[in-house]
Amino acid sequence: MIKKYVFGNPFPTDAVIAHVDVCNDPLPFFEINGDGDFFTCLSDNEIVYGLGEQIRGINKRGWEYVSWNYDNPHHHEDTRSLYGSHNFIIVSGERLFGAFFDYAGRITFDIGYTNKNQMSVRPEKPDLCVYIIEGADEKDIVRQFRSIIGKSYIPPLWAFGYGQSRWGYKDENDIREVAENYSSADIPLDSIYLDIDYMERYKDFTVDINRFPDLEKLASDMKNNGVHLVPIIDAGVKIEEGYDVYEEGVENGYFCKNADGEDFVGAVWPGRVHFPDFLNPQARNWFGKKYETLTKLGIDGFWNDMNEPAIFYTEDRLEETLRHIHKLSQGNMGINEYFTFTGMVAGLNGNAGDYHKFFHNVNGQTIRHSDVHNLYGMNMTRSAFEALRKIQPNKRTLFFSRSSYIGAHRYGGIWQGDNKSWWSHILQSMQQLPALNMAGFIFIGADTGGFGCDTTEDLMLRWLQYSLFTPLFRNHSADGTRKQELYRFSSVNTMKEMIKIRYALIPYLYSEFLKSALDDEMMFRPLSFDFHCDKEAINVEDQLLLGDQLMIAPVYKQNAKGRYVYLPEEMMLVRMKKYDDYYTEILDKGHHYVHCELDELVFFIRKDKVLPLYAPAKNTEEIDYASVTLVGYPQSSYTLLKDDGICPDPEESLCRITLEN
Amino acid sequence: MIKKYVFGNPFPTDAVIAHVDVCNDPLPFFEINGDGDFFTCLSDNEIVYGLGEQIRGINKRGWEYVSWNYDNPHHHEDTRSLYGSHNFIIVSGERLFGAFFDYAGRITFDIGYTNKNQMSVRPEKPDLCVYIIEGADEKDIVRQFRSIIGKSYIPPLWAFGYGQSRWGYKDENDIREVAENYSSADIPLDSIYLDIDYMERYKDFTVDINRFPDLEKLASDMKNNGVHLVPIIDAGVKIEEGYDVYEEGVENGYFCKNADGEDFVGAVWPGRVHFPDFLNPQARNWFGKKYETLTKLGIDGFWNDMNEPAIFYTEDRLEETLRHIHKLSQGNMGINEYFTFTGMVAGLNGNAGDYHKFFHNVNGQTIRHSDVHNLYGMNMTRSAFEALRKIQPNKRTLFFSRSSYIGAHRYGGIWQGDNKSWWSHILQSMQQLPALNMAGFIFIGADTGGFGCDTTEDLMLRWLQYSLFTPLFRNHSADGTRKQELYRFSSVNTMKEMIKIRYALIPYLYSEFLKSALDDEMMFRPLSFDFHCDKEAINVEDQLLLGDQLMIAPVYKQNAKGRYVYLPEEMMLVRMKKYDDYYTEILDKGHHYVHCELDELVFFIRKDKVLPLYAPAKNTEEIDYASVTLVGYPQSSYTLLKDDGICPDPEESLCRITLEN
Repeated sequence: MIKKYVFGNPFPTDAVIAHVDVCNDPLPFFEINGDGDFFTCLSDNEIVYGLGEQIRGINKRGWEYVSWNYDNPHHHEDTRSLYGSHNFIIVSGERLFGAFFDYAGRITFDIGYTNKNQMSVRPEKPDLCVYIIEGADEKDIVRQFRSIIGKSYIPPLWAFGYGQSRWGYKDENDIREVAENYSSADIPLDSIYLDIDYMERYKDFTVDINRFPDLEKLASDMKNNGVHLVPIIDAGVKIEEGYDVYEEGVENGYFCKNADGEDFVGAVWPGRVHFPDFLNPQARNWFGKKYETLTKLGIDGFWNDMNEPAIFYTEDRLEETLRHIHKLSQGNMGINEYFTFTGMVAGLNGNAGDYHKFFHNVNGQTIRHSDVHNLYGMNMTRSAFEALRKIQPNKRTLFFSRSSYIGAHRYGGIWQGDNKSWWSHILQSMQQLPALNMAGFIFIGADTGGFGCDTTEDLMLRWLQYSLFTPLFRNHSADGTRKQELYRFSSVNTMKEMIKIRYALIPYLYSEFLKSALDDEMMFRPLSFDFHCDKEAINVEDQLLLGDQLMIAPVYKQNAKGRYVYLPEEMMLVRMKKYDDYYTEILDKGHHYVHCELDELVFFIRKDKVLPLYAPAKNTEEIDYASVTLVGYPQSSYTLLKDDGICPDPEESLCRITLEN
Repeated sequence: MIKKYVFGNPFPTDAVIAHVDVCNDPLPFFEINGDGDFFTCLSDNEIVYGLGEQIRGINKRGWEYVSWNYDNPHHHEDTRSLYGSHNFIIVSGERLFGAFFDYAGRITFDIGYTNKNQMSVRPEKPDLCVYIIEGADEKDIVRQFRSIIGKSYIPPLWAFGYGQSRWGYKDENDIREVAENYSSADIPLDSIYLDIDYMERYKDFTVDINRFPDLEKLASDMKNNGVHLVPIIDAGVKIEEGYDVYEEGVENGYFCKNADGEDFVGAVWPGRVHFPDFLNPQARNWFGKKYETLTKLGIDGFWNDMNEPAIFYTEDRLEETLRHIHKLSQGNMGINEYFTFTGMVAGLNGNAGDYHKFFHNVNGQTIRHSDVHNLYGMNMTRSAFEALRKIQPNKRTLFFSRSSYIGAHRYGGIWQGDNKSWWSHILQSMQQLPALNMAGFIFIGADTGGFGCDTTEDLMLRWLQYSLFTPLFRNHSADGTRKQELYRFSSVNTMKEMIKIRYALIPYLYSEFLKSALDDEMMFRPLSFDFHCDKEAINVEDQLLLGDQLMIAPVYKQNAKGRYVYLPEEMMLVRMKKYDDYYTEILDKGHHYVHCELDELVFFIRKDKVLPLYAPAKNTEEIDYASVTLVGYPQSSYTLLKDDGICPDPEESLCRITLEN
């Protein structure tokens, strides 16, 4: 049962697309104070789930989270904001309810931070809709919520293949070298990503012809080997005379404006840019059509970046900073002056004040950016998605975005942002998966091996053993860090086997993905969502249920030779070195220590369930669905969902294959 | 058996004080390449212990560590350098040996980072001594190593009490308020720390009389309530006309010099400072005597900070940076210019280049700082220690330092630096304890609750439950972060009980500390040091043996209701809510999941051992040794070591009390 409560004059976020009657009763579960903040007491044993892409555990208690889309490359334990805003929570314990705070600006969730047994939700302004959902259990509440926010985006099947990326591939030769090295190492591969260096001076929808003299041929050569090129598109449009996107945007008034009506100037990779007004339907339509410049060259996948939007600096703040720095440096800079100096420089990037300075044109109405900040990235991906549906109506295009708001799940996936080569970021990624599924995001995954900082061989191995279960499975790293293509490591053979296991699993993972997308189910769930009454299960933070068949419990600690696992029921442990070289063992319900060497993948098949495995192909196109073998409990069956992996509407080619053990 | 090998022309670090004959045989275990780098292969199951204050696990495999004392306030997983350099490792597995690389400059330990199965040790210059130690087991190797580096510093007994600190106590009223609030809340307290704000314009050995009009009276009033004031002393001496320390230093040539012989200028809290030349025995002697200005006022404890030395900036680099920034800001700052700009500003602090610019006068010889960098902090604490032994020969003074090198363990303790209010930093602190003990540092502890970032109530509770076992037990936090004195939390009563448990344990902890100091034993050990042949025990990274009686296994994860524990032998679990309200249970050898609510302390008593507990006093002075009760196995006994806690030589008042259960 979903009830909608309206406060003040909310901006329409388009998160909810189903009609829900407004309820005029008092809001249940929360008290509201004079400022329009919402309060509820939390008993000691209540758990708070949700908030999508956020830090800390599956249980969000004990921290303060701020929904304010932000280019944060650290993902520290004290982070308050990441790239997305997913304001949906479930409180479970003595009470059971879901709450969605549909608000496009800054909103704070203090979940037992200030006061251990209280949650407060504080929107910056008292203009929002709150949806309260009650249901039989957490999964039911999620299903209801997903039913009003619309079906999740389904990418092409090839997007489930392994992808290699790096900010640092400078030219065509780098790309060809990566493809060849993967091929020589006999490691399956479906995609190679183009980061910012493929563009001419970081201008969207351009190609640097010195570095990529014939992108169309490159894309075609790659595709002949089953590899898709996936270029990045950034939010900011470079200010440069003669650059068509810039000139058209200025001419048509498609960029965000200053208070005085001039086009707002921020700075990102190319230096000075304007920001397309993605909240303006005409501008969204115009920008979306530009993707055709690349699809014409054979490109069928994109990742949208920097769309919080990230702003390295604005010119007025930079000038003020330089002026102030100069003044400070005239005297003896002690503690106060030094911290002011370094703080001002560090504070240029993503400065909250800059987001108050520009405005959107929403159907003729001028809206201050900070009031709708969290919708920007969503509407960039929407722009691409809606245009591409017209440009190439017969096939799916891969999209995923860094920034998002609930609703963006209908237009693309997300990657979990600029993480680091830290062991703790394996767990951080994993803990976000169910919260993202709750919010409708199911095409998700983290930069495997870590984006920032130097990776290590054992970290990469363990990360692969986790990521090979996530829909988006991409190895990505930052310029200047240790190179981490798999063929660079001495354990390349073990890594190859892990990628082959991924390919053996793709039909299953894709099937579970489809079920999740079509039926509003969660592909990844905390144990507690299936085992409410199990007092051990409800506190497990490092294992997840995958579909109805599997439980994953990756090793995410350096030098560990195994890990502890809690089984909420009898399960079959699978210890796998190769897709066809594995050992199984039935383990009883309860706590276990499970050994797991670096070259072993360990996961669990649930009681009376069975998992289909396929002969690993060198890419998704070559998967042979006839090559299935089943592993799991006897006398069990699995219904595999399958479509052509191409048509925008999966129902057109959908089939259900029953596999019996 | 210890063998010493000399390469090139090493600078005498004073780490080793016993005579060890030089061995002219080839160095065992390592290959040496043409650059003077040391290489050894690591088999899959070999473990590398050591490196003292460093990141990552007890087993150091899988990362690259750089000994280069550094003011690093992040302690990230990708950190390479922290505040201390403790170049002692033990390789254990198919081989068993210890190795101490006695080198005062930058030295890199690549322990399976570049190549998973190789360790390389790379000193910046090929001038060093290497000590190779073979022995019966790890503990024997440590004992041998500690026998040549000299006995560890023993603080006064009151230093084992609970201490409250915060960078942010601005004046006498703040201090009195803290003392009163602790007293009102009935929480034991032995010390309050004075951070930089007690000084006049951050000048060492001055007191700001506006804020602290009568420090002598304040110290005396505090001491009448059993509370010691512990002021901070920084390495840099402010450049200010009329300031005696500055003027004497200049006059006598006691500061570090530029290449041209002028006093080197860096900048820290007070802005422009000179750095005392602590490697010059006369300067060390002079600076040490200055502590008397504070001991005269009744001060009997100090913490030495910023002695890596931290340098916020140097004037020439600042000028160059400003010039370059100005140039960059003239054009359109894109990616390269922007990252250069922000990188230069961020790179001012602790810039490696600055440490090449100044020189020491070591008995008439001019030594470039970067060649002896890692000795600076050690010699600052030595300066204080040696002077105070003369100034007040009849009592111990509390010293601990941020920066250190092996050898500094003879002069003071260390705190584990500017950590954060992160759950992961509980484990990080814990994993350093045995490595620090290996290097002789036993008066150690982390800023409880976390220094940087905002703490939470549950984090503080769990942190107390760990820290109450560490010799140094101090709650410290940074200006601008959430205040974290215990009386501010709703769980103040539980926190009080945890502090009382600490006081109940102090006679035991002090006894174990004395044994460790007098007999060169490790107070904290990995399980593997006592259970070599146990294949599960050798991989345990989050439990420690404490003395011969206890095993600690703190809960260090948010919202956890318990944790997994491996028992290498039968042990007695103690679940304690109050020092006199606890429950015990014998658990078998093996893996266990142990429940532990937020208000419970869980620890283990080893088989056939017993732990003495005492009635908690309101401070260490009031501990009643007659109030002992014993908890543990029947028919067991414990020998308690005890002295007066004051005399520099503990042997003078040492007694051994046998307690029988």
